[in-house]
Amino acid sequence: MFRLFTMLLIGFSAAYAVAEEPPTMTSVLEASGAADWVVLEQQSLLYLFLDEGVIVFELAPQFAPRHVANIERLAAAEYWDGLAVVRSQDNYVAQWGDPAAGTETARPLSSAEDSLAPEFFRARDGLAFTAIESRDAYAPEVGFVDGFPAGRDEGRAWLAHCYGMLGVGRGNDIDSGSGAELYVVTGHAPRHLDRNVTLVGRAIHGIEHLSSLPRGTGPLGFYEAPEQHVSIRRIRLGTDLEADEQLGFRRLRTDTDTFVELVDARRHRREAWFADPAGRIGLCNVPVPIQVVDPR
Amino acid sequence: MFRLFTMLLIGFSAAYAVAEEPPTMTSVLEASGAADWVVLEQQSLLYLFLDEGVIVFELAPQFAPRHVANIERLAAAEYWDGLAVVRSQDNYVAQWGDPAAGTETARPLSSAEDSLAPEFFRARDGLAFTAIESRDAYAPEVGFVDGFPAGRDEGRAWLAHCYGMLGVGRGNDIDSGSGAELYVVTGHAPRHLDRNVTLVGRAIHGIEHLSSLPRGTGPLGFYEAPEQHVSIRRIRLGTDLEADEQLGFRRLRTDTDTFVELVDARRHRREAWFADPAGRIGLCNVPVPIQVVDPR
Repeated sequence: MFRLFTMLLIGFSAAYAVAEEPPTMTSVLEASGAADWVVLEQQSLLYLFLDEGVIVFELAPQFAPRHVANIERLAAAEYWDGLAVVRSQDNYVAQWGDPAAGTETARPLSSAEDSLAPEFFRARDGLAFTAIESRDAYAPEVGFVDGFPAGRDEGRAWLAHCYGMLGVGRGNDIDSGSGAELYVVTGHAPRHLDRNVTLVGRAIHGIEHLSSLPRGTGPLGFYEAPEQHVSIRRIRLGTDLEADEQLGFRRLRTDTDTFVELVDARRHRREAWFADPAGRIGLCNVPVPIQVVDPR
Repeated sequence: MFRLFTMLLIGFSAAYAVAEEPPTMTSVLEASGAADWVVLEQQSLLYLFLDEGVIVFELAPQFAPRHVANIERLAAAEYWDGLAVVRSQDNYVAQWGDPAAGTETARPLSSAEDSLAPEFFRARDGLAFTAIESRDAYAPEVGFVDGFPAGRDEGRAWLAHCYGMLGVGRGNDIDSGSGAELYVVTGHAPRHLDRNVTLVGRAIHGIEHLSSLPRGTGPLGFYEAPEQHVSIRRIRLGTDLEADEQLGFRRLRTDTDTFVELVDARRHRREAWFADPAGRIGLCNVPVPIQVVDPR
């Protein structure tokens, strides 16, 4: 009892007090309630249909409103249909869309813009930023905003290139990205890309269909032969799908005590296997739980 | 001229002075000489032959002499031949060997040990440790030893779980690893495993044959059906291969000024594409160049 009392004094959670065991990620999630989760709106979901399966991304308009709006226009115009995944670079990215984007032979962008002012970062204020204690190699401070990994400094906040993050390819001009080419991180986080390219979301379902594609053998992992391209059936916003095609998800909210407890459990790894738990954690090693729910 | 002089004063490399351009990774490697490279001995190379291709690992006996010796015994006994890759967990590891290791139905280990004292870390002294300046989430100090990413504290040094690192699977007992099950990191560096499991080397060739395998759909990414297993043709030390099967490699030495310049160039990314070079770098984002050479 003295032990339990002491623990309460030093701020352990109610779940800990009930279980009388140090929390693990499993126990934290089991103790979560409905208010800890947010059901994702179909209008915030981008579906990529391949023969291999469907990949779903949650979009991040709070960081990249112009780019997300352009992607919505491209999806509505069925722009990517019949294009392909053209690049799979080991330990880096998979990329799809129009390799001729920005050239004279580019596929027309319909009502979408072919040039957008960059959204590499935004103002720091106005976000539900949950900081996590971590010595980060790239950012003065790191944490999560609405489920997305992010960094910030005194004035700015930006999305971080963790595994599964969705970005807008560009050329050397910083305003040369439109969404005609998109990429997803499929390797160790290339954080040196942070604040150099616009990130627009995160894969929440099916990324294995992109991360396990054969690697391209050309420079930068581009496929060398057209027959290696992986055809895109369709890319659509969730709201443009038939009801029976929609998938339902809820995501753990990251502005909650439950998320803080989850990060703590991940930091300390109290499962029996661990001989020497790190007691530390890196931004891109924090899982943000997603669960499949009935979409209707 | 004033600009060049100033740069020499603040410590830029001779290569920089000659080129009169800030060094990039490409220019650093182009300026390297034979003494910057080490040709890898066949006795330090472990070859994994799959139908998909060959993967080559450089072993690290300076960190794990007992485990490397045991792996050498297992390779000599052709232990893994006919076993399989049984696990491919997205953004984590691929694993192969005997899933029954440590149980009564385990494949006999021949002259190898079935239990080894852990080699999760070693003494700090006696290594050619090139520290890199980096705020690392997991270790007080990080750097490279003979091409391997590593961490250290006041008394200990250990290999770090970066992409491509090769480890010895174990159960909950810390001495339950033998090499009967091996894994390679195929996702974002799971650095929380550092000092919790014995690492024995690093993939230097062909990791894409493991990282692009279909993901297992069972718990922890294990394949659910035996027909999904990816058969191992052979695993051999380089010295046990026919001459025409050996591959030749040289690796950039990491105890050289050239490597320090390479890390600096990677930190600052002076290529035109970068709008806001990080000026910072993470341990697992440092590339250690490997080149194919004639093995004879």
